[in-house]
Amino acid sequence: MKALEWLGNTLRILNQTKLPVEIVYRDAVSYQDVAEAIENMEVRGAPAIGAAAAYGFALGALEYQGDRDGLSSFMELVQDRLEATRPTAVNLFWALRRMEDRFRECREIEDLSEVRRVLIEEADRIAEDDRRMNRLIGKYGNEIVPEKANILTHCNAGALATVEYGTALGVIRAAHEAGKGIHVYADETRPFLQGARLTTMELLRDKIPVTLIADSMAGYLMQQGKIDLVIVGADRIAANGDTANKIGTYSVAVLAHAHGIPFYVAAPTSTIDLKVASGQEIPIEQRPDDEMRECFGVQTAPAEVKVYNPAFDVTPAKYITGIITEKGIVVAPYSVNLLKLMVRS
Amino acid sequence: MKALEWLGNTLRILNQTKLPVEIVYRDAVSYQDVAEAIENMEVRGAPAIGAAAAYGFALGALEYQGDRDGLSSFMELVQDRLEATRPTAVNLFWALRRMEDRFRECREIEDLSEVRRVLIEEADRIAEDDRRMNRLIGKYGNEIVPEKANILTHCNAGALATVEYGTALGVIRAAHEAGKGIHVYADETRPFLQGARLTTMELLRDKIPVTLIADSMAGYLMQQGKIDLVIVGADRIAANGDTANKIGTYSVAVLAHAHGIPFYVAAPTSTIDLKVASGQEIPIEQRPDDEMRECFGVQTAPAEVKVYNPAFDVTPAKYITGIITEKGIVVAPYSVNLLKLMVRS
Repeated sequence: MKALEWLGNTLRILNQTKLPVEIVYRDAVSYQDVAEAIENMEVRGAPAIGAAAAYGFALGALEYQGDRDGLSSFMELVQDRLEATRPTAVNLFWALRRMEDRFRECREIEDLSEVRRVLIEEADRIAEDDRRMNRLIGKYGNEIVPEKANILTHCNAGALATVEYGTALGVIRAAHEAGKGIHVYADETRPFLQGARLTTMELLRDKIPVTLIADSMAGYLMQQGKIDLVIVGADRIAANGDTANKIGTYSVAVLAHAHGIPFYVAAPTSTIDLKVASGQEIPIEQRPDDEMRECFGVQTAPAEVKVYNPAFDVTPAKYITGIITEKGIVVAPYSVNLLKLMVRS
Repeated sequence: MKALEWLGNTLRILNQTKLPVEIVYRDAVSYQDVAEAIENMEVRGAPAIGAAAAYGFALGALEYQGDRDGLSSFMELVQDRLEATRPTAVNLFWALRRMEDRFRECREIEDLSEVRRVLIEEADRIAEDDRRMNRLIGKYGNEIVPEKANILTHCNAGALATVEYGTALGVIRAAHEAGKGIHVYADETRPFLQGARLTTMELLRDKIPVTLIADSMAGYLMQQGKIDLVIVGADRIAANGDTANKIGTYSVAVLAHAHGIPFYVAAPTSTIDLKVASGQEIPIEQRPDDEMRECFGVQTAPAEVKVYNPAFDVTPAKYITGIITEKGIVVAPYSVNLLKLMVRS
């Protein structure tokens, strides 16, 4: 079960809003299809959004009907549309910039089909890089996982949030594959239930022991000494280490800190945004109100009640024990060490 | 809309599991009916459970078909059944002990209908005491609510959790009635959604400004300085001030502490259990697994996933700024001050 699959001239997107009850795909044949799938959270998770947008960019070139001269201005529209889907995860902008750069390098190529081939190849490479990076994140992350650890995770930073294997769940998979006998507590992650719907499903399929909890139970588990380690993904990491991730991550981080429990972020370096000095500058997406008045399609609150529905929050670097990347684990002082990491080839 | 209404020989119980979408009542005519309604959380909230159980006890005497001699052993069965419904909220045991004491005082009364009259009268008095106590909790609690306060509450400690007016929501109602221009953030309160379904409904009906949030958003609001005060109810308060309340309360208390936000518990003295030295001795109910795999009746997680579903957690006294009771506000040192409060007439 893959979040994304490139079928030649179609991007098959697993519609994650229906899981685990229904398995439905969207076969995207246009950049608009891909943009809609990202907006509706059919595909979600920072690295998966990045890869989907890259293929969406390529689809834009595929569906273009005009002559070579008009392609550049059309591709600008494509990029603008894809960039406008979701504001927080930087991987979206990172992947689109990579596609844009590759497209610029094609300026001497007159043959449209050759340009298209190059763009598809670049999207494939972004996807392949993500697979490779997640395995490395798993390898490095495994080093900090104790034997028999009880690991808490929030949201879904798994195979479904990436092209394959996952970031936080990549670390968990690697520790499981290393025979460490770990056990995972999965936060349900309201309002979208990525933990209840996606993380538990992934772990059950891989036979990794998992227990589902409500978000509000994490503190009580920590109080009882039942959590050894927290690992979460990230949507954007600022130059100072402040990390935007799914709403509720900040609460988990404060609770972990209060209980002396290590709190790790697992993410590829494409999630690090050195242009953003601190978490205060990261734009936080507000999701539609109705998501908070229902639960998986069923009304759970008065239709007229006012709601607050931020999709993300920012965890200050001081609560983060380490950031696990494909280049190794970064610790404080993050301002220095993230910069060092990013210049390292 | 009342949680309970005594109709002479029937206890009309508002089935809160269906709110706010459907308004359904159970007309309980036997103690078994009442026990089932408590177990299924059709009636919930510590003070409401206490009052319901008291009426259930009276219903037991009403439905009894034998002679006067057999009544005592029957009433023991009634009491055992009602006590076995839910373990955490002490108001259940408190109300049943009050009924038991009253019943014992009837030992000289031969006339069964007179015994029944006395028991109904006692249940009425328990309900009336609850109404009165909640108004006093509101009056005392209002003193600590600043003008224009943004107040966070968890679960539903409102009119629906009591006979009338509420405890935490009693304080909120009193502050609103005093014209303080307050605004409430209501935690959704998974898995049973008492906040989303009940608290928002109550506050909307009273035109008290309310915004619904997911449990995981409370920390982020605090980080942004959007919460001035937390007020929650209680299911049992130990002699040292440790307080059992709806799962998630502990997390909110730790978060409030980390952000320097006052955290108050509002509860009648019937919630204080001096026989329990500390929170560690309070039994914590585990609810059925399926409550965590669904949301208001809709499947949200793989059917085979293991879950953890404690209904309550315990907030250590050190995180509690004050306990608002009908006799006034108690502050630390709780071991001394709760004892003083309880001996005060």
